[in-house]
Amino acid sequence: MQINLAIDAMSGDLGPRTNIAGVLLALLHDPLLSVTLVGKKSLLQTLLLQHHLSCEFAARIYLLASDDVIGMDEAPASVLRNRKQSSMHLAVKLVAQNLCQGVVSAGNTGALMLISRHYLGMLSGIERPAISTAIPTYKSHSYLLDVGANIACQPEHLLQFALMGSVMVSCVEGKVKPRVALLNVGHEAIKGNSLVKEAANLISQHPCLNYVGYIEGDKIFNGDVDLVVCDGFTGNTVLKTSEGLARYLSGQIQGLFHQNGYSRLVGFMAKPLLQRLKQQMDPVRYNGGSFLGLQGCVVKSHGNADAKGFSFAIMRAAIEARQGLAAHLQLAMKKQHLPNETC
Amino acid sequence: MQINLAIDAMSGDLGPRTNIAGVLLALLHDPLLSVTLVGKKSLLQTLLLQHHLSCEFAARIYLLASDDVIGMDEAPASVLRNRKQSSMHLAVKLVAQNLCQGVVSAGNTGALMLISRHYLGMLSGIERPAISTAIPTYKSHSYLLDVGANIACQPEHLLQFALMGSVMVSCVEGKVKPRVALLNVGHEAIKGNSLVKEAANLISQHPCLNYVGYIEGDKIFNGDVDLVVCDGFTGNTVLKTSEGLARYLSGQIQGLFHQNGYSRLVGFMAKPLLQRLKQQMDPVRYNGGSFLGLQGCVVKSHGNADAKGFSFAIMRAAIEARQGLAAHLQLAMKKQHLPNETC
Repeated sequence: MQINLAIDAMSGDLGPRTNIAGVLLALLHDPLLSVTLVGKKSLLQTLLLQHHLSCEFAARIYLLASDDVIGMDEAPASVLRNRKQSSMHLAVKLVAQNLCQGVVSAGNTGALMLISRHYLGMLSGIERPAISTAIPTYKSHSYLLDVGANIACQPEHLLQFALMGSVMVSCVEGKVKPRVALLNVGHEAIKGNSLVKEAANLISQHPCLNYVGYIEGDKIFNGDVDLVVCDGFTGNTVLKTSEGLARYLSGQIQGLFHQNGYSRLVGFMAKPLLQRLKQQMDPVRYNGGSFLGLQGCVVKSHGNADAKGFSFAIMRAAIEARQGLAAHLQLAMKKQHLPNETC
Repeated sequence: MQINLAIDAMSGDLGPRTNIAGVLLALLHDPLLSVTLVGKKSLLQTLLLQHHLSCEFAARIYLLASDDVIGMDEAPASVLRNRKQSSMHLAVKLVAQNLCQGVVSAGNTGALMLISRHYLGMLSGIERPAISTAIPTYKSHSYLLDVGANIACQPEHLLQFALMGSVMVSCVEGKVKPRVALLNVGHEAIKGNSLVKEAANLISQHPCLNYVGYIEGDKIFNGDVDLVVCDGFTGNTVLKTSEGLARYLSGQIQGLFHQNGYSRLVGFMAKPLLQRLKQQMDPVRYNGGSFLGLQGCVVKSHGNADAKGFSFAIMRAAIEARQGLAAHLQLAMKKQHLPNETC
């Protein structure tokens, strides 16, 4: 199915050069994808020219001019009100106007969230959007949400995250009744704070959810569950700690093969293996935080994602847009309010 | 300085055989250390005999009989009331009676906390004990607290954790004015939940603390701060996630060197390097959660720590006991309540 995604081309720490390289990787990977790059037109044109694209390839890239870029540290509320011609505003508006089927930005997360809520609106029955991301496991990958949209949560919010995440996993991964777990400090029923305990009560009783109980931090990479639910403060901390630790351990490995002549020789021989390892350890593979709960497809790329990382976020948006994730979510939310409805 | 530590020899998932092996490693490492093993006397004697210890060495090991062992999943409150002859009770009592200078257990954390509070009492001015642990960094290591004693915290508790942690780092590491950071989802002042924001307000104004601001999860391994403060829910999740990820990545590395003939050859050549790496990645190196806020030295070893891990927890307790950490903490807590006292 052909789709067109809006790309906030000016966003992210590494800027348009990296984003365009990422866009081209995604276009190469997905022949039915086209994109609308939003940003400084002359700059984008110059960067595109450097890639010597074929006419056929270039025809899949549209440009929309915007000379304003939202900074990473700007206050979201002020940005929402005052920067209506920025690349982020215009990119999200393309989805609201049905001109694009999804949007990808590596910019200011809070601003992207507010702007997306403003133009796209929330699904009925959902109070707060949540950000979901894939995490690697021994078996393949599972999903974690919320990873930062909701810093202070009530039990009902965690129930909504579980419902949205469950529909997302079903829709995107084709899994029937995904296994949902709540992140906690122990697996026993007495463990945890009141938020987790009350959320467990709500989630375990919901007929549409396949709740499998609490999960501790050291088990989330085992792949025994499909979805790990937590508040945004905890999820954000888990995600960032994992990134930091993977980077630290990767550095330790590199250092190990540079200690002396022998280790350098082994390091030389092991180079192809180490490169594969680096890819496996690279959080970039799972780059792309999906905003769930909006009436439209919005994916946030990591602020310092490289071209490959940015292309993963685009591919993530392409899957969600093609599967009609937002419509599936809306249907699921409506269904659960009907009497005697089975899930 | 000669000290004697009480060892809850029956504790932990791996039991007395592993614990005794760990005790012997610690005794080898520290010639001025002696221990009192608390547990099933005949079993401990049999296990000790298997090591063919010299008389001199055996003279540094005392035994105290207890036939009751507290299970890992038993309810702490019931254990406190009803299991007064258990190895954990008797081991902690040895410290309360000044017969030992500290206690190490790999048993039920909640039970160890309640029993320790009961027999040792809290330092005046401290409402809740906190568990602190060392974490590896690029530069050496820093400390994280609370990692699970306090699941629901108020801002004042985080201030107390910061004060206790700061004194601990000064005392054990010899650092003047340790750099204290609060774990948060962003470094900007507007980021975070109300707990973190109010705690930042209290900690930043305290004259005894060298507060350096918020720290995000991906920065805690950089070594730019000496102490990372958070509530016990977040800290426990950070710690367990790190353990799980390190185990996952370690597995990926092992798998990488077993894929084909070439990788097996490189793996064979890289074996000494990989073993060093395994040691570096091994959370065992930093095994030992210190209970801060008690009138005595209590260290919790990880439930599934091996002999080496258990020996690290014992060595941790030995350092804290020798430095008189509990007394230093008490002094610091008293000082801050005196008018015009400088820190």
